[in-house]
Amino acid sequence: MSEPETQELGITESKEHSPGEWYAEVVQKAGLADYAPMGGFIVTRPRGYALWERIQDHLDGWFKETGVQNAYFPMFIPESYLEREKDIVEGFDPEVAWVTQAGNDELDERLAVRPTSESIITPFMSQWIRSHRDLPMRLNQWCSVVRWEATDTKPFFRTKEFLWQEGHTAHRDEASAWEETMLRLDQYRRVHEEVLAVPVLEGRKPEHDKFPGAHTTAAIESLMPDGKALQSATSHYLGDGFAEAFDVTYVDEDENEHVAHTASWGLSWRALGGMIMTHADDQGLSLPPTLAPEQVVVVPIWQEDTRDEVLEYAADLAAELDEADVRVELDDRDERNPGFKFNEWELKGVPLRIEIGPNEVENDEATVVHRPDGASAVETRDGIADAIGDHLDTIHAKLYAAAEQDLEENVREAESRDELLGTIGRHGGIVKTGWCGDEDCEAAIKDEIAAEIVMVPLERDTDPVHDECVVCDDAAVETAYFAKSY
Amino acid sequence: MSEPETQELGITESKEHSPGEWYAEVVQKAGLADYAPMGGFIVTRPRGYALWERIQDHLDGWFKETGVQNAYFPMFIPESYLEREKDIVEGFDPEVAWVTQAGNDELDERLAVRPTSESIITPFMSQWIRSHRDLPMRLNQWCSVVRWEATDTKPFFRTKEFLWQEGHTAHRDEASAWEETMLRLDQYRRVHEEVLAVPVLEGRKPEHDKFPGAHTTAAIESLMPDGKALQSATSHYLGDGFAEAFDVTYVDEDENEHVAHTASWGLSWRALGGMIMTHADDQGLSLPPTLAPEQVVVVPIWQEDTRDEVLEYAADLAAELDEADVRVELDDRDERNPGFKFNEWELKGVPLRIEIGPNEVENDEATVVHRPDGASAVETRDGIADAIGDHLDTIHAKLYAAAEQDLEENVREAESRDELLGTIGRHGGIVKTGWCGDEDCEAAIKDEIAAEIVMVPLERDTDPVHDECVVCDDAAVETAYFAKSY
Repeated sequence: MSEPETQELGITESKEHSPGEWYAEVVQKAGLADYAPMGGFIVTRPRGYALWERIQDHLDGWFKETGVQNAYFPMFIPESYLEREKDIVEGFDPEVAWVTQAGNDELDERLAVRPTSESIITPFMSQWIRSHRDLPMRLNQWCSVVRWEATDTKPFFRTKEFLWQEGHTAHRDEASAWEETMLRLDQYRRVHEEVLAVPVLEGRKPEHDKFPGAHTTAAIESLMPDGKALQSATSHYLGDGFAEAFDVTYVDEDENEHVAHTASWGLSWRALGGMIMTHADDQGLSLPPTLAPEQVVVVPIWQEDTRDEVLEYAADLAAELDEADVRVELDDRDERNPGFKFNEWELKGVPLRIEIGPNEVENDEATVVHRPDGASAVETRDGIADAIGDHLDTIHAKLYAAAEQDLEENVREAESRDELLGTIGRHGGIVKTGWCGDEDCEAAIKDEIAAEIVMVPLERDTDPVHDECVVCDDAAVETAYFAKSY
Repeated sequence: MSEPETQELGITESKEHSPGEWYAEVVQKAGLADYAPMGGFIVTRPRGYALWERIQDHLDGWFKETGVQNAYFPMFIPESYLEREKDIVEGFDPEVAWVTQAGNDELDERLAVRPTSESIITPFMSQWIRSHRDLPMRLNQWCSVVRWEATDTKPFFRTKEFLWQEGHTAHRDEASAWEETMLRLDQYRRVHEEVLAVPVLEGRKPEHDKFPGAHTTAAIESLMPDGKALQSATSHYLGDGFAEAFDVTYVDEDENEHVAHTASWGLSWRALGGMIMTHADDQGLSLPPTLAPEQVVVVPIWQEDTRDEVLEYAADLAAELDEADVRVELDDRDERNPGFKFNEWELKGVPLRIEIGPNEVENDEATVVHRPDGASAVETRDGIADAIGDHLDTIHAKLYAAAEQDLEENVREAESRDELLGTIGRHGGIVKTGWCGDEDCEAAIKDEIAAEIVMVPLERDTDPVHDECVVCDDAAVETAYFAKSY
């Protein structure tokens, strides 16, 4: 058998100089995804899907602990249903994929492949909710949705079909619906911080950029190393507009009928894309330990005369870690040399490598190497599982701290239009500034450097960072966070 | 607040006399599913989806233990891809839903909403497989598929969109692919027996009724109480036809290129439908304990003067069961009387009810009642968790035994055409008989009583039960299992 070319493993593009090409190469060579034959679609390979499953496991557990029930609604929505909430249809119509033929017949009514499911879920809430005792009703589904955007495909960032979860909840009043909106936003922040090791900002979309029909769209924004902001989750307080449109009412204790308030909230595989782009480097993927399918790889390094003792020691060590619920892989392949294995596991992003050679065997030790920065240490064999646990915690902390520093250094302020344009032009990143609230003032910046207001503060009525709008000099009503964005 | 009408809970249709209406009523009143606005589609409500999640948990665990990796492929398949395997396109074309418009444009090429994914997965296997070391490759996805059948909607049995898993595997040779086909069939049998408490027959489809393009289609058949057979899972050995069509080749140790052999296997939510129809009765759902979201409901029965002690005892008992990992619900609602609660939990199918009244408190006991047959027992409070575990095992065994007896009593033999027609006409069920292998002889029976050959023995070359074909009197080549079927 011929040894595959070593450079096949290597990432040839540079994260710093060609981030787009580099990202595409990492995603493909690490085995996360491939491009499908239809533009805009990807195939999620097992290593990519395993990461999504781990995000699902965490979020789904938190959802269920906080009263959410999973369900499944049809993937098609009749056009007449989509039209019942006018903002939804205006917002999504240009992006809808339509089923028009089925079983060799033309359909009487076009069916939308769901771009989001408010229009099919809310009518059922209307049927199921009668009394205040049925509230809050909290439904969620894990599924894919389709939005036909005519832009370049970027795996996990921009695809016509994408995986997400969509939660849909109905409540007695605004306070309960708002609490829900904030609870889910907080869970999205947690999954970024605790699972993906990605620091985030929590904010609100400007009025003109809200989810169609929403009262408030709250969002999770992270900052990519190329200086662009990424929105990876949103949580919408929908007010009573959807409930009105679909007749979601309930009889309260006062025996009168009231209109419910609804919320919807979703996190997509963009969160995964953001994690990849944040931590990966020119050697490949770099995974936070909580997310990694393999947290530790044990690589035995032997010569013919030390082979048996090294392999036995390595296998015993791997077994002990497995016993301690560490996700560990023993790479005892004969046909690969250690250098090849190091490169391959670095490409795959395994957080911690343990090297076992004759020295480690003789001294009852293990040499451990951190993926993100190559830091290494020697640990005694006794108590190794605890030591590995500590190393994994350290690796998570390192990944997070590096990303947090990058975020902190790249949120700046600007007092004038020139400063805003110059700062984003030179550094990218996020620039906080005063804004009058007028969409035209955002458009003026957008036209010049394609930066937009990615968020405003979550809390309404907070004082703006500057008194005047950075564009028109009118009184600022809030702080705008400008950035180029995905 | 007004008490809802008690009859709202009751099943008004009879399983024996109007099984179709009864089934629809059980599914809706137990909160499993509702009918969607488009004919052929259903909404899977939380209690229904929770059952599907539990099936997923078991199967997915077994899949992963046996080398399967989850992945996700696009829900759309370009028409040209569907056409690359001629049997697939001929077999599925009449049932395909087509996306023809997207983002306000007509598409250049129609996209099929996946009816099954061989045509999009196999081409990627072709890219990913190079050497025999890449084999076997075992991929699976949990998703929905769409098949536009123009028949009446029956939740979980017959819907245009349905949930399933589809496994797709590639192998070095026929032996490995066949072993895979049988391994998955065995896991499907296990999930029926151990989780759904539904006994099954394992068989093979007649040649003319195989999955399009398959070499062998093995299937799981169960027998519904109305005498019709239900196919809930299939496992196909596809030979090398798909691999040829999509160019799945590998370099073997002999350094020559070989064509792979492939298999595909799927279990749909029909398995869930079969479980419902098998065990439910005129009081509602009846769930096997392994599948049940709540395995035990504790119902306290108090008067004003005994309220506190009864509630405390019941809560303490529920806490102990919860601690012992029993899925337990304490129904301490004030606004419902015990009779209403009994009816409601019976409707929902909870396997075991524990009644706690002043007597139980005084004697340090608990009265337990089995859902399927109302059998009751009194258990001492001490060691209650173990006793409950035993009761749950007994309930599973009871459900299975009743269904097994039904199956055994309803597999009969027939030596002549008249006997075959008469037996199925009178009893329904499955009739084993000799068959010459000619599709026309099946058609003759189908025309008369709409019964078909649901399976032949898994093992080829087993002697037929009779020497002559039941229809044409030519030499029989195998045993045919005739039944009406879903």
